[in-house]
Amino acid sequence: MAHIDIARRVYDHSWKLDPIVRSLLDTDFYKLLMLQMIWGLRRDVRADFTLINRSKDIRLADDIDEQELRDQLDHARTLRFSKKEMIWLAGNTFYGRKQIFEPDFLDWLADFQLPEYDLRREDGQFVLNFTGLWTHTSMWEIPALAIVNELRSRAAMRKMGRFDLDVLYARAKARLWEKVERLRQLPDLRISDFGTRRRHGFLWQRWCVEALKEGLGKSLLGTSNVLHAMETDLEAIGTNAHELPMVMAALADSDEARLMAPYTVLESWKKYYGGNLLVVLPDAFGTTAFLRRAPDWVADWTGFRPDSKPPIEGGEEIIAWWRLRGRDPRGKLLVFSDALDVDSIEKTYRHFHGRVRMSFGWGTNLTNDFEGCATRPDLDLRPASLVCKVSSANGRPAVKLSDNLQKATGTPEAIAHYMKVFDYETPSPRAVDEQVA
Amino acid sequence: MAHIDIARRVYDHSWKLDPIVRSLLDTDFYKLLMLQMIWGLRRDVRADFTLINRSKDIRLADDIDEQELRDQLDHARTLRFSKKEMIWLAGNTFYGRKQIFEPDFLDWLADFQLPEYDLRREDGQFVLNFTGLWTHTSMWEIPALAIVNELRSRAAMRKMGRFDLDVLYARAKARLWEKVERLRQLPDLRISDFGTRRRHGFLWQRWCVEALKEGLGKSLLGTSNVLHAMETDLEAIGTNAHELPMVMAALADSDEARLMAPYTVLESWKKYYGGNLLVVLPDAFGTTAFLRRAPDWVADWTGFRPDSKPPIEGGEEIIAWWRLRGRDPRGKLLVFSDALDVDSIEKTYRHFHGRVRMSFGWGTNLTNDFEGCATRPDLDLRPASLVCKVSSANGRPAVKLSDNLQKATGTPEAIAHYMKVFDYETPSPRAVDEQVA
Repeated sequence: MAHIDIARRVYDHSWKLDPIVRSLLDTDFYKLLMLQMIWGLRRDVRADFTLINRSKDIRLADDIDEQELRDQLDHARTLRFSKKEMIWLAGNTFYGRKQIFEPDFLDWLADFQLPEYDLRREDGQFVLNFTGLWTHTSMWEIPALAIVNELRSRAAMRKMGRFDLDVLYARAKARLWEKVERLRQLPDLRISDFGTRRRHGFLWQRWCVEALKEGLGKSLLGTSNVLHAMETDLEAIGTNAHELPMVMAALADSDEARLMAPYTVLESWKKYYGGNLLVVLPDAFGTTAFLRRAPDWVADWTGFRPDSKPPIEGGEEIIAWWRLRGRDPRGKLLVFSDALDVDSIEKTYRHFHGRVRMSFGWGTNLTNDFEGCATRPDLDLRPASLVCKVSSANGRPAVKLSDNLQKATGTPEAIAHYMKVFDYETPSPRAVDEQVA
Repeated sequence: MAHIDIARRVYDHSWKLDPIVRSLLDTDFYKLLMLQMIWGLRRDVRADFTLINRSKDIRLADDIDEQELRDQLDHARTLRFSKKEMIWLAGNTFYGRKQIFEPDFLDWLADFQLPEYDLRREDGQFVLNFTGLWTHTSMWEIPALAIVNELRSRAAMRKMGRFDLDVLYARAKARLWEKVERLRQLPDLRISDFGTRRRHGFLWQRWCVEALKEGLGKSLLGTSNVLHAMETDLEAIGTNAHELPMVMAALADSDEARLMAPYTVLESWKKYYGGNLLVVLPDAFGTTAFLRRAPDWVADWTGFRPDSKPPIEGGEEIIAWWRLRGRDPRGKLLVFSDALDVDSIEKTYRHFHGRVRMSFGWGTNLTNDFEGCATRPDLDLRPASLVCKVSSANGRPAVKLSDNLQKATGTPEAIAHYMKVFDYETPSPRAVDEQVA
């Protein structure tokens, strides 16, 4: 018997495209939760999203061929939710609740297609914009990021031989397993994969998720990636993102309404979801101001996700606030998801252990930690700090301040205006490079 | 198109045996060089070989199924040199010389078959003996060792899941590549794979050889494994082994003749081989005594292979002897092959650099360094210190003393007699565990 199956080899070498995104479920779960609410309450809103590369020294358009990027984006636009996927969304239990997605929403979703995109090159970077209805543009965030990141990995790996690749993945696997062995020393750890957007590649993310499943057992809550969750029988994990308060604040007709936008978003959310999905993301316009003005019912929510302060500082601030509002933090949940790796997970876990419930959403350093894994230093793979953010809503500028102004997005004028409206207190700066999670 | 080729899968699951040794070339090159001389000069001699497990705490017969071992040994006995292999042996250049193997010898070799074996279990160990003509029993050494070692690896790995195996090999590959990156800091390094006998497995040895080829370039002289050499277009490396002086000393009719046996072996060798194949293995009955009595022409040989003294001590002793005999060590060669790993290679290289030509034969720590690579400590893979040694020649006991009496083989009485005959000076003992190369 010949060693090589000729049909297979010819097929393998005849691919027109090796698609990066092969399913509309290859996205983060929070996009679907938010989409149901956006579709239910604000399906008329137009929102534009734009790709932002915070790593200015990484010239993406020099690394990635524009036509390859177009081919991948075009391929993603051909996708529809398959019958099997629709049945799974309708029949699966998410966060302990059956039928979390309403039949009307699922009917609409069955015909969903990613909308058009605008792409051009400018000074070594891609200018990539998605304009149109919020219900459609929002869904580009994750596939666009995953595509750009994987194209960048592929470009670097094209310079590697068979052997270089073998060593690259051997080292990356050995490294991840060292992390797993450290993390399983933490008995009450609850952790999830949040690494879709900055992943090295789809198949590598799958390996990482399976490594966590194998090595961490019940400490692994699940994965934010809906497709991986379905195919590996794990929980789909995620709640909500900055785009909700950003759009609502942009649409507000007065600064008074703008100030209330972060709370009206939560009121809307509560109409759709409960339990562990009641997690506040407080930092869109600064956590400290958010807490100061928060209505008392916000303290009844299950937890908070501090996303742009150092974990211990951010967690302590929220715990102090719960106490101030007369709530016992031991029954509350903190979800850490910013720039995590094993060191910071261990440190944060030990710091808060016994004082509050915790879970960790592990991103870039889970699914794209290849630094030093290449056989040649010039082929090294450093992830870019890429985001895809809403830039305007119904033509009005959208702004995110966060607790770290280096992560702020929006026009300089709009940022200045929001800082005034929200009484933004300038925190000590953190380098954005530490924050690629 | 289905993901799985049905025919392939059925075939894969229908194997009666996954053979460990699939070619008579899957042996060390020195066996063929010695065999030509044995066949040419002493084809009448009967020599018995026996498997010796120096790692008494490793109960091989508890780890390995006896029938599996028989099946593998039986399969090796079905092998013949293939036409392609015979053509390559005849046509290839070895150590810079064409037609190193004579046509008559190759004609005889074409019909070669491994002889029968005697196998039984005793107290958790295998008693494995090969009795018969030296021309045949000698050829069991390498396949027998490779089979026992790989069966032991397989037995351990049968307890591992798909994922454990993935991590095991990822870690082993990452570890080997760290070694390669250290070794390529040594610009004049000359190193060979000597790891056939104690390899983790055939495919793993191939990976190691290819890693060295990829990472070390011209610093890799080649591999002792003839099959790997042929298939990867590398040089086949090796000279001679202790069995030559051991058999010749056993056959000697007087102690005077016995004392001369190590030198008569060299005289015979020189009739067959020249150049870099003129490497003395001086330690069969103690290096110090060998050097003291050596005829002056021994100092004209290209080099020495100190095999059982610490490399620096052994090398210094030989360099001092060359000087004493009026030869310039800078034109001479030292081949180090005992218990090497990166630390000792670096140390030895730096110690002798510029004073003598060196090459390194890297064995167990190249092809079987899996300690700590398993996902569970109870599945850890530690290589056994296994050898397969000539035990008698024409019914007379064969003895090896070496420079480390823990590596001595033979009956206690015969060892005592040889120590007296050869004026053996008892050196400081080294633990045999350090010496699995």
